Amino acid sequence: MPRILLSNDDGYLAPGLAALAEALRPLGSIDVVAPEQDRSGASNSLTLDRPLRVRTGLNGFHYLVGGTPTDCVHLAATGILPEPPEMVVSGINRGANMGDDVLYSGTVAAAMEGRHLGMPAMAVSLVGREPEHFHSAARVAADLLRGLLENPLPGDTILNVNVPDLPYAELQGFEVTRLGRRHKSEMLMPAADPRGEPVYWIGPSGREADGGPGTDFDAVRRGCVSITPLDLDMTRYRFMDDLSQWLRCCAR
Amino acid sequence: MPRILLSNDDGYLAPGLAALAEALRPLGSIDVVAPEQDRSGASNSLTLDRPLRVRTGLNGFHYLVGGTPTDCVHLAATGILPEPPEMVVSGINRGANMGDDVLYSGTVAAAMEGRHLGMPAMAVSLVGREPEHFHSAARVAADLLRGLLENPLPGDTILNVNVPDLPYAELQGFEVTRLGRRHKSEMLMPAADPRGEPVYWIGPSGREADGGPGTDFDAVRRGCVSITPLDLDMTRYRFMDDLSQWLRCCAR
Amino acid sequence: MPRILLSNDDGYLAPGLAALAEALRPLGSIDVVAPEQDRSGASNSLTLDRPLRVRTGLNGFHYLVGGTPTDCVHLAATGILPEPPEMVVSGINRGANMGDDVLYSGTVAAAMEGRHLGMPAMAVSLVGREPEHFHSAARVAADLLRGLLENPLPGDTILNVNVPDLPYAELQGFEVTRLGRRHKSEMLMPAADPRGEPVYWIGPSGREADGGPGTDFDAVRRGCVSITPLDLDMTRYRFMDDLSQWLRCCAR
Amino acid sequence: MPRILLSNDDGYLAPGLAALAEALRPLGSIDVVAPEQDRSGASNSLTLDRPLRVRTGLNGFHYLVGGTPTDCVHLAATGILPEPPEMVVSGINRGANMGDDVLYSGTVAAAMEGRHLGMPAMAVSLVGREPEHFHSAARVAADLLRGLLENPLPGDTILNVNVPDLPYAELQGFEVTRLGRRHKSEMLMPAADPRGEPVYWIGPSGREADGGPGTDFDAVRRGCVSITPLDLDMTRYRFMDDLSQWLRCCAR
Repeated sequence: MPRILLSNDDGYLAPGLAALAEALRPLGSIDVVAPEQDRSGASNSLTLDRPLRVRTGLNGFHYLVGGTPTDCVHLAATGILPEPPEMVVSGINRGANMGDDVLYSGTVAAAMEGRHLGMPAMAVSLVGREPEHFHSAARVAADLLRGLLENPLPGDTILNVNVPDLPYAELQGFEVTRLGRRHKSEMLMPAADPRGEPVYWIGPSGREADGGPGTDFDAVRRGCVSITPLDLDMTRYRFMDDLSQWLRCCAR
Repeated sequence: MPRILLSNDDGYLAPGLAALAEALRPLGSIDVVAPEQDRSGASNSLTLDRPLRVRTGLNGFHYLVGGTPTDCVHLAATGILPEPPEMVVSGINRGANMGDDVLYSGTVAAAMEGRHLGMPAMAVSLVGREPEHFHSAARVAADLLRGLLENPLPGDTILNVNVPDLPYAELQGFEVTRLGRRHKSEMLMPAADPRGEPVYWIGPSGREADGGPGTDFDAVRRGCVSITPLDLDMTRYRFMDDLSQWLRCCAR
Repeated sequence: MPRILLSNDDGYLAPGLAALAEALRPLGSIDVVAPEQDRSGASNSLTLDRPLRVRTGLNGFHYLVGGTPTDCVHLAATGILPEPPEMVVSGINRGANMGDDVLYSGTVAAAMEGRHLGMPAMAVSLVGREPEHFHSAARVAADLLRGLLENPLPGDTILNVNVPDLPYAELQGFEVTRLGRRHKSEMLMPAADPRGEPVYWIGPSGREADGGPGTDFDAVRRGCVSITPLDLDMTRYRFMDDLSQWLRCCAR
Repeated sequence: MPRILLSNDDGYLAPGLAALAEALRPLGSIDVVAPEQDRSGASNSLTLDRPLRVRTGLNGFHYLVGGTPTDCVHLAATGILPEPPEMVVSGINRGANMGDDVLYSGTVAAAMEGRHLGMPAMAVSLVGREPEHFHSAARVAADLLRGLLENPLPGDTILNVNVPDLPYAELQGFEVTRLGRRHKSEMLMPAADPRGEPVYWIGPSGREADGGPGTDFDAVRRGCVSITPLDLDMTRYRFMDDLSQWLRCCAR
């Protein structure tokens, strides 16, 4: 039985994590290491300035006090668990991680950290503002995990999975997608504290600008499970020749 | 004169930021919005759970109390400044951002956020543990910025620049590179607090595993300025066909 | 039925809080507003730089994300609850709050905040490193609360209660005590992070220096419940005349 | 020359701290250990869950990354400085610390920590929303420190000093005061984040309720420097007999 590490960015008490653990238990030996609190938006941030504490909740899940999703996967893979995990599944996130969201997502970051440390990994999100069908998404995760166990993916690649908030039977199949793109974010939201001093909220993220055919936005809109392969190597290879050209003009 | 936004992840008082502002002032109208504190390792994390405060330091630089590099660029572009910036330069970081470092780097994240919001952007780092030649790196930034002003790069692309810690005259030219790769990280470092309870430090990042020809590690080792084009679209396009194949086997 | 507010500094999931809620439910209408996380050592700190969020846990207790014990009582008394509470009980703390501890204690601070906002209040702690008899301490809290409901205490006063970690039947009675005093704290504990940079832990608090007759330390040592009246007005009245004298010498 | 430790809660870059250091330098050997950031409202909170880092700013002042005022004094007294300090002066705080403010004040907490660790200590605050006359307050601090050096105060006592925002020559003398009292705090201030979710600000502190003769509020209002002796022992001695009586009724 493979040793499967679960994590998330909504915190160790999130219902999506419980649903995931339940669905994957038949497929492997499950360990959970997740943040104590909601760390949505944590991206790949790593805690380097202080040591972290591991605790175990009443639900049997381990959690890191003050830790990020990346911290959780990193420590789980480098010594917290008696035996190192062999795969990483992150989620089920409450809400989509599509298009530009993936840059900021702690859910995706946990999967990236797993892949970076040598393990097959995927991130699973349930689309919607207050989504309900965590068990659908957990079954999707189990389907894909079975596939990964038989046919591993190439290194440097993780799967970013977004599941429509529907009963499993109503899902319209799996679709390979590219990341769409959101509109520019909205303006900041100014406010004032009780002493009248100005403070600023980051504005909400934009609606999708590129949600056309082939994107994750489009697949989910049609009720399909969106599966986007993400590349951990961010080098833009196809631009390297042009850049050499460009440099010749610019630098003397 | 273009309006250039500077940010970093070492905090608004960092010497690398001051050197950068000084070197770029002849090229544009400079605004600085940086974190109050050192936020190295913040990656692309965005602060969504609370509003932020902007202050201005004695050095004339704006800073965000408790803000991340991404917060700084985001708020600067969405309303904090009287006029929105047109380009973003992030740095000069104290220490390299090469290979896998870019996933975690707040310096790179600030440039990514700029590009994501529609602006040409680059991240500049000075290699070394306690590097000194910030003025070399700042001159390199000015060289490249002049190029960017004449010949813009395609959207979705930022430049990740790593400068050896040498006097400007001793730099061995500019080199287009791909990201190298580090070894798996080292094991966590266990410790104990004064009450004897266990705590865990994230272990140091590994030495480079792939620092061969063409990588950023290799260029810097030979005294060259490494310039890596980074792609903000993380979709692994070249794997999409294989993944469709793979899915057909795995899902029924 | 009086409306009783419960809070603590160990977090809303702490077993001591659950035991307290269970024991006091027959005596009043119970609301719980507690910190999300362990905030031991928070003292009377108030969060003024950002707004706070209230959530409700699966156990029905409200909690404040990132909030301190003082925040919890303050917000509960100024508008979060449909009706304002009439009394505050804080605890059951995991570990003693005796002698100088009270200065730093979040448990005591929650009670102080209640009194400060006009409500009778007490703080209850269970002595020991990993104490077990939370139900003893909860029964003690119920005993005292019954007394408070019949005979209110003067304003500016709260009760600081420390209960030995014993079965209720083995407690040796209630004793009115003064705060003892600990020895000077121990030296800091130097350590190093994985990069070899120095960091410093606050050293453990000292053993008691004044644990003689009449102190909280002494009462607990003999198996008694220690009850110390604390004064919210920190003015040292008995020294005011001497200070006037002193000032005449010092200032011209 | 006595070794005098300075700290504050406004952060190591605050102008009040610089003014204090300048005014006290003729009287002793000055060390500064202050928080990196503004920690107003930190009260006596101590950082026990992680180790702290000490840095030195361009102004020569030491600061603790993420540390509280209490952390600063504690670490300075238990090993960070080559020689332990002999006295503590905290301030000059930007804004009053009168009446109930002292419970929450980090400025007062730093002085309390000093006294608690065996050193004479005082806290100095400059009254006003954006006060200017830091040099007046610094001179007042020097006046009082001269007195302390000649005639030490009893243990368990610190001086809480509030200075009107006036030129030194216009101050109307020193006055020994008791803590006044503010009105109940105002209601919380509800707000919403950009996603429409409710958040709550702690409301502003109330106007003084008891600012009558003899209080700190009253002295400052008349242009006098208010000097309140604070007692570190919070036991309410004068209530102990009544409490014994009370207990006899309540407990069986």
